Amino acid sequence: MDAAEFRRRGKEMVDHVADYLEKIEERPVYPDVEPGYLRSLIPTEAPVEPDSYEDIMKDVERVIMPGITHWHSPNFFAYFPAASSYPAMLADMLCSAIGCIGFSWAASPACTELETVMLDWLGKMLQLPECFLAGTHGHGGGVIQGTASEATLVSLLAARCKAIRRVQLLDPKKSEAEILSKLVAYTSEQAHSSVERAALIGAVMMKKVPTDSLYAVRGEMLKKILEEDKAAGLIPFYFCATLGTTPSCAFDHIADLGPLCNQENMWMHIDAAYAGSAFICPEFRPLLNGVEYADSFNFNPHKWMLINFDCSAMWVKKRTDIIGAFKMEPLYLKHENQESGLVTDYRHWQIPLGRRFRSLKMWFVFRMYGLQGLQAHIRKQVGLAKEFESLVRADKRFEICAPVVMGLVCFRLKGTNELNQSLLKKITKSREIHLVPCQLSGSFVLRLAICSRSTEFRHIQQAWQHITQLAFELLQEHHH
Amino acid sequence: MDAAEFRRRGKEMVDHVADYLEKIEERPVYPDVEPGYLRSLIPTEAPVEPDSYEDIMKDVERVIMPGITHWHSPNFFAYFPAASSYPAMLADMLCSAIGCIGFSWAASPACTELETVMLDWLGKMLQLPECFLAGTHGHGGGVIQGTASEATLVSLLAARCKAIRRVQLLDPKKSEAEILSKLVAYTSEQAHSSVERAALIGAVMMKKVPTDSLYAVRGEMLKKILEEDKAAGLIPFYFCATLGTTPSCAFDHIADLGPLCNQENMWMHIDAAYAGSAFICPEFRPLLNGVEYADSFNFNPHKWMLINFDCSAMWVKKRTDIIGAFKMEPLYLKHENQESGLVTDYRHWQIPLGRRFRSLKMWFVFRMYGLQGLQAHIRKQVGLAKEFESLVRADKRFEICAPVVMGLVCFRLKGTNELNQSLLKKITKSREIHLVPCQLSGSFVLRLAICSRSTEFRHIQQAWQHITQLAFELLQEHHH
Repeated sequence: MDAAEFRRRGKEMVDHVADYLEKIEERPVYPDVEPGYLRSLIPTEAPVEPDSYEDIMKDVERVIMPGITHWHSPNFFAYFPAASSYPAMLADMLCSAIGCIGFSWAASPACTELETVMLDWLGKMLQLPECFLAGTHGHGGGVIQGTASEATLVSLLAARCKAIRRVQLLDPKKSEAEILSKLVAYTSEQAHSSVERAALIGAVMMKKVPTDSLYAVRGEMLKKILEEDKAAGLIPFYFCATLGTTPSCAFDHIADLGPLCNQENMWMHIDAAYAGSAFICPEFRPLLNGVEYADSFNFNPHKWMLINFDCSAMWVKKRTDIIGAFKMEPLYLKHENQESGLVTDYRHWQIPLGRRFRSLKMWFVFRMYGLQGLQAHIRKQVGLAKEFESLVRADKRFEICAPVVMGLVCFRLKGTNELNQSLLKKITKSREIHLVPCQLSGSFVLRLAICSRSTEFRHIQQAWQHITQLAFELLQEHHH
Repeated sequence: MDAAEFRRRGKEMVDHVADYLEKIEERPVYPDVEPGYLRSLIPTEAPVEPDSYEDIMKDVERVIMPGITHWHSPNFFAYFPAASSYPAMLADMLCSAIGCIGFSWAASPACTELETVMLDWLGKMLQLPECFLAGTHGHGGGVIQGTASEATLVSLLAARCKAIRRVQLLDPKKSEAEILSKLVAYTSEQAHSSVERAALIGAVMMKKVPTDSLYAVRGEMLKKILEEDKAAGLIPFYFCATLGTTPSCAFDHIADLGPLCNQENMWMHIDAAYAGSAFICPEFRPLLNGVEYADSFNFNPHKWMLINFDCSAMWVKKRTDIIGAFKMEPLYLKHENQESGLVTDYRHWQIPLGRRFRSLKMWFVFRMYGLQGLQAHIRKQVGLAKEFESLVRADKRFEICAPVVMGLVCFRLKGTNELNQSLLKKITKSREIHLVPCQLSGSFVLRLAICSRSTEFRHIQQAWQHITQLAFELLQEHHH
């Protein structure tokens, strides 16, 4: 395919994409296929001679579309949103064309520099404390990670390295292995599984901190475990707080937890993967109070800020902490300030080596929406969740299971877990809407998250009508 | 921006992309900017009200392009290639539109299933042993990782987990920390820095194995170290072989190393990041002989197989090995065969949770080029490297520093390292071509890699003319 053909096919693809998104509502949101469906629809080997482009595009509809869960359907309410917007897609086309691999400044200076400045822009939108920004002389700064899981892992590894060095400075005879075996990381029992996984990868112990009745960790809960662990000779070194947990969008009390972590020399990382986007609205910003105590903060613009996956924003207070944990250089050559200079090599900030020019899509989205447009998006979706909450509250057969703070509603039929499992099965089978469950205090709970940019009030009403209809049928069945 | 405006702007962007790539040769390949250049060119904060799209596109030329290292210029010979092709870009547009996050089968069955089948297609093109393929009942299978660094890390973590379990089975009293402190991983002294980094992340010791005069590891070299380490009470558990090293594209002797690793119960991972693509050509396939002894194999189609970054292909012989190392489930619930069923949840195969629909671009590229088209691309670029080698060999002032097997030529001026450093400085400053150095046996060496799809023989000739002209000037200066 040469440039001339790309001009033609590319324009067709633009229309194809617009058609897909404009008519997405007509498709069942959840696919009706069995595991292994695809293999029998295509050849067992790649062709030796080229296929025609027309055949490929026919196969997109024949082979791929039947197996797609349509995340951008207005009837998709599962997991958390995956952001999508036209400006981000345009930027990604440009990113593909430039096709640089920005592992170091020299590998494409614009790729590194736009990222640093975009993370400063975004940090200012969130009113992050100055110390997290790169500015022109700062010790902190931001980076785009692929996912929140990677941000958590990177922060845990940086904390591990810092803790080992600190303990060895006090007691040089202690081996790294000995220290490693005593390090303990902590997180909420409601935290995302990727947090526990980070500890598994980093070969450190991780303990789950119990939560209060609103599924949030409070300072006193962490303090109690820390005292026990220190008395047992363990070395607490890391706490991952969650702002907006996956099950119920609960918020750990970072304003209490932060001073405790600082006092105990523990790294505090904040995972605000979903909720972080909302902090650009002044009415939600108080939930981020206490971030000043954190060593690192992360959220996913690719969830709720209209920037297509992947784009996970992470800031650290001291970039030397993060670089020092990964840089392939002997320790005795390191200086506290060598990284506060002008050149940033982002390969030292992340797990992979290569990286795409992802800040382009931030730049396009921030400029095409403006802060006001982004705030309007957040507020609209929170409003829709509140509407859904009202509908649920008005029906006495149902209950709301956690405070509705942002775009997530946790609800269930009053009754057994089995009853609610049956309801979810009916919903999934109907393929009219799609949502996933969670477990809260031993209860099986349905989660309805406002996901698609195209979800409007009528979709919320239809979803509720559909759910109550299925619940009615279910309760009739149970009655007989 | 609504769908109608996207149709218009998208088509403009398609032309913009085609224009950029058609005229890329007119731009200096390496940018003329100082660190920090970008910050002063744009506002310090995001706009509150939207900017116009025209202004953004003007800024792409004003702000971004001056700071781009043009990886797809025919005059770019640095690092290794970053793949790029029009079919891959079209597929990525579709991927952005679908915008699913394929962490589990249910999150979008087509995303998971096409990936599994594409990795089988690609495995067959490479003539990988059947045991690496998923087939319909296999125990092995492939996955797309973001980068080779992640594939290495995943394999090392799987090996670590397997080794700890094996040792504990023999001696249940041994603590995990104790075992961890005795585990040793090995790789070539010529291996990529990401291999050493994987060991750092995984908190295990890593030793560098010396290479022969062609920069390759041989069986006897590894064997010698293993004997010493075992005698010292250490537990060898992992060897990362390289096929096509970054400095000189050297090939470790896997047919000797593999049986040794098998015998010692060590995991052998093969990192063929760059060279792997060439194994689809029968004339290069013998270099992969011995892969049958490996536990995992990885290469980057996003380097040399026309599939835009990121797309790193990894296969494992036993998927339970890799899943078992990450899955958040207690060990006593695991069964050897539970993962050989029909449903694959790729989140257990990788470091991040989220993942894009990357197999679409494999599908488009494999079908639009066909195996023959892909082979032709490899052969053309190897041919260009051989042409360059001939030019160098014909000039007695220069020497070739390593065998030219694929698309990389290592060469230098006969003389001091300082002389060659000066030559590279002149080349970089001229901005007509771009290449990076390496170190081989203490010598400062220039690396010329055939990178861009648009590089033709005339570019090779021009590059050589340019290099010899600068060398002439340099030698004149030194003479006076």
